[in-house]
Amino acid sequence: MAAPRKIKLTLAYDGTRYHGWQLQRNGLTIQEVLEDKLRVMTREPVRVFGSGRTDAGVHALGQVCHFETRSRLEPEELQRGLNSLLPDDVHAVRVEAVDPGFHARYDARSKVYEYRILNRPEPDVFLRRYTWHISRPLDREAMRRGLACLQGEHDFSSFRSAGSGNRNPVRRMLHVELREAESGLIHVVFEANGFLRHMVRNLAGTLVDVGAGKISPAEFEGILEAGDRRRAGVKAPARGLFLMEVLYGCGETEGTDDDR
Amino acid sequence: MAAPRKIKLTLAYDGTRYHGWQLQRNGLTIQEVLEDKLRVMTREPVRVFGSGRTDAGVHALGQVCHFETRSRLEPEELQRGLNSLLPDDVHAVRVEAVDPGFHARYDARSKVYEYRILNRPEPDVFLRRYTWHISRPLDREAMRRGLACLQGEHDFSSFRSAGSGNRNPVRRMLHVELREAESGLIHVVFEANGFLRHMVRNLAGTLVDVGAGKISPAEFEGILEAGDRRRAGVKAPARGLFLMEVLYGCGETEGTDDDR
Repeated sequence: MAAPRKIKLTLAYDGTRYHGWQLQRNGLTIQEVLEDKLRVMTREPVRVFGSGRTDAGVHALGQVCHFETRSRLEPEELQRGLNSLLPDDVHAVRVEAVDPGFHARYDARSKVYEYRILNRPEPDVFLRRYTWHISRPLDREAMRRGLACLQGEHDFSSFRSAGSGNRNPVRRMLHVELREAESGLIHVVFEANGFLRHMVRNLAGTLVDVGAGKISPAEFEGILEAGDRRRAGVKAPARGLFLMEVLYGCGETEGTDDDR
Repeated sequence: MAAPRKIKLTLAYDGTRYHGWQLQRNGLTIQEVLEDKLRVMTREPVRVFGSGRTDAGVHALGQVCHFETRSRLEPEELQRGLNSLLPDDVHAVRVEAVDPGFHARYDARSKVYEYRILNRPEPDVFLRRYTWHISRPLDREAMRRGLACLQGEHDFSSFRSAGSGNRNPVRRMLHVELREAESGLIHVVFEANGFLRHMVRNLAGTLVDVGAGKISPAEFEGILEAGDRRRAGVKAPARGLFLMEVLYGCGETEGTDDDR
């Protein structure tokens, strides 16, 4: 039996039919499918550790997790085998052997989420699982002005959903950006050193209120500063949310601080 | 009771969970869903006439059909009501009152189909239902050279699937084009005055053989000229095929000649 090795796995998944990332009794999760197929591949029980959870219906282009295995399979063999076993809505994008000290959650320096809105009168049958459809025209410039206040270190309590304990609600937003794509698509990008529970979806929901003229960019900033979640807008639906990337630093890092 | 009016309906649908356009006993079809909801809206039995069938799993951005109704509902009311009743993978894009003589099939001047290939090593979980994934690199220039021979009037027997009777196999290809989109997407556009059974999928499958270097553009042309379907490549899967648009002429038209 070989010594255990640590493997880093980067995953894409269509979250539509999953009850989120983390193992649970009431429904199929990404973690469950993954551990199941890894057990088949490695012929041993495998426990995977994700960079953080994603909620039911949330998608990923670059979720990261790690696991240990005594299997002698090379990373490429693991990837090929895994992809032949996984259902077609989960795909191993990258499989790498990493330093035994690597931890998918604690070593993460930042995460990039993208929230996707389809803003046009008519819905799109092909994007129905991957966007939040908003019929009335949104003012992109107002949304951009609202977003700008998020940059930097803030107490994000206003955008945290209940049931997330009373840990530190301060996060550092490293980058925010609103991108307009063809035919009414709006992608809002958020990179932070960590995210509170439902933070991106609560931000997206409130940002749509700014775009619709229900609140001004200054009021958006006021909500952030108030630290009172009752003032924020609705939580945007899970189907528009994508975990794009988990970034790992070279040398010392602080780790992300996802509130779960 | 009002006199019957003729309504033209333009539809988008995600064909994934349907057994094609036309009513059948063995599975749910677009026509069935549509007639069912129109009956609810108009409170009378409704029979819709499509521009032509689409096969199981084939998608549409602009399928067209017509029906007659004695309902007094305005086209906008019909559209709104229909879209509130239809499942989220079928959408009424446009509803118009038309001349009583209009016929969705016989008046069509041409149809535009698009075949979508994802050409990159890794699949994309979000495009799995909407593309044919080809891992090995395809030579776009060879494909373009192959495509060029299709332009104009030809006997397309080589690209017709069996079971389509022995009607005239000559069609006029008005436009062919290969478009490269971001990240490995290849869209092959075909506009013709009519299509034989599985013609676009047989063309796409043989075209991939050209891109992969299995046959040359000249051999592709030879297959077209041979008029022998046993020489063509595999039939490309339904999931990559989109009916983009049905074009109706002003004044006299010849009608499309779909082989069904």
